[in-house]
Amino acid sequence: MDEFARIDRLFRPLAGPGARNLADDAAVLAVPAGQELVITTDTMVEGIHFLPNSTPDLLARKLLRVNLSDLAAMGAQPYFYTLSTALPADLPAGWLESFAAGLNADQGCYGIHLVGGDSVRTDGPMVLTLAAHGLVEAGTAIGRDGARAGDLICVSGTVGDAVLGLRVLQRGIPGLTGGVADHLAGRYRLPAPRCALGRRLRGLASACLDLSDGLAGDLDHICSTSGLGARVDLSELPFSEAAATAIATDHDLFAEAAAGGDDYELLFTVAPDDRDAVLALGEELGLRVTVIGAMEQGRVARFLDRDGRPVTALQGWRHF
Amino acid sequence: MDEFARIDRLFRPLAGPGARNLADDAAVLAVPAGQELVITTDTMVEGIHFLPNSTPDLLARKLLRVNLSDLAAMGAQPYFYTLSTALPADLPAGWLESFAAGLNADQGCYGIHLVGGDSVRTDGPMVLTLAAHGLVEAGTAIGRDGARAGDLICVSGTVGDAVLGLRVLQRGIPGLTGGVADHLAGRYRLPAPRCALGRRLRGLASACLDLSDGLAGDLDHICSTSGLGARVDLSELPFSEAAATAIATDHDLFAEAAAGGDDYELLFTVAPDDRDAVLALGEELGLRVTVIGAMEQGRVARFLDRDGRPVTALQGWRHF
Repeated sequence: MDEFARIDRLFRPLAGPGARNLADDAAVLAVPAGQELVITTDTMVEGIHFLPNSTPDLLARKLLRVNLSDLAAMGAQPYFYTLSTALPADLPAGWLESFAAGLNADQGCYGIHLVGGDSVRTDGPMVLTLAAHGLVEAGTAIGRDGARAGDLICVSGTVGDAVLGLRVLQRGIPGLTGGVADHLAGRYRLPAPRCALGRRLRGLASACLDLSDGLAGDLDHICSTSGLGARVDLSELPFSEAAATAIATDHDLFAEAAAGGDDYELLFTVAPDDRDAVLALGEELGLRVTVIGAMEQGRVARFLDRDGRPVTALQGWRHF
Repeated sequence: MDEFARIDRLFRPLAGPGARNLADDAAVLAVPAGQELVITTDTMVEGIHFLPNSTPDLLARKLLRVNLSDLAAMGAQPYFYTLSTALPADLPAGWLESFAAGLNADQGCYGIHLVGGDSVRTDGPMVLTLAAHGLVEAGTAIGRDGARAGDLICVSGTVGDAVLGLRVLQRGIPGLTGGVADHLAGRYRLPAPRCALGRRLRGLASACLDLSDGLAGDLDHICSTSGLGARVDLSELPFSEAAATAIATDHDLFAEAAAGGDDYELLFTVAPDDRDAVLALGEELGLRVTVIGAMEQGRVARFLDRDGRPVTALQGWRHF
């Protein structure tokens, strides 16, 4: 299939309003009055951000979802995306069909559509770039710089699953049942961007970002842009049952889970008075929200164990 | 330099309104009332779209300019861009500084600024993706599907320089003076997107695109989306003095120049009554505009020599 056949058969069915049927030099989109456009882009490289031989439909969905997670962190509603692929000439039969099917499935889930892109050949590892565009009511996008001393630090869902899942896929974790291992691997392979929560955090969260590099590194972004320090009680970290099971088999996995990236949960701060509101919001959305610490004067994030002793071994995630 | 140092030192100085200082998960941009957003993205792969050891500042500018050329073809005004780079860990000293300097220079020329992106490592060839966003008055973007039978086919500037320039760089063309060879190579290395012309073609051109794949392939896009055929008089093709000199040394280069891609000139159609207007526009902008044929009933583009005989050997450009 040449580039034009690929566009025609696989990508045109993904195109929506503004894409001009993928037949022009560019897409043309309206932004409704009173809204602003939110733009993010993420690139994934084979062997760096995903394992070679990854299932193409999951890969496509992860690529879309990591971008949607950035939109969620800003409080934006998904709108449209562009896709640029650099792929080898000798893709396995059906690979691109599966990749497009993954996008198609998630487009429906998240209410976003393709408007354009580029499709080129590479003799090296695959490189996939997706740029997601969202809408937010003007002036309501959530930044990283609005945290105040005393604000509570909250995290959605559970942390550490993805890094433990990567470990399962790469080396295995002895002693886990198949169900536990599969749960962790699944969380690595396919994050769940917190779009609904992000939308509802507008006007509630003073700062927000998504956990991609790991708790320590990502919290440091809020600290540095807000000009504050932070205290995190590691004993409050929300682990899934699967992660807790893995940690029980090997306690060294605790630090890995606490530090690990790729969870794509939201890390955000709220005023102390909003504690009940944010916990109620989590209940309403059926999504765990946990207070794990508070912002404070200073410049650094401190991580304390259950006895209040500092733990320094939490490093930001490094790509495998 | 790690990713954050690179952003801080090299890319933050390129950031403008809406970039939120490159410190958030996403950029947030307003689109003025009455305007639409025009979005395009192009990816360039080392060894496919550019020669290894290309000068980084020229490479950066070409990457930006090929995207600007797509905006020009739609009649859009440049607004902002995102940049995603997959680069090897062992870049030569100063490479990235030079790359950023190239972007900086062209940002000033074209009135566009960086708002975000991603920066990752690859163990393979470099892959560079830029997404350019422009603005156009709502409803005035120029498509490819509006040509009518009888419309004149026009091209800006000169054609064939870039493909001859690539040949100079790859194999040389015997018998050319250094000045002629340099002119051709320069046109390959650094296209001149026709932004001002594109803006002025709104309401004048019935269809427009930029010449990236080559005259035959690109004209075929207008034919297929407009549901028409076309007749091109090859004797009317505008060649630069340098290209004419090269063709005079080796007449086989004629077909290559006529078919060659990467010129990033605008190919557009206008109603016959607008011939004088479009020629006057070219004069006003100091940019050659040449009528090379006309749209006609049918489904294919015909290329005729000076004696009116069909020439069939014009193929779309293939990446080297």
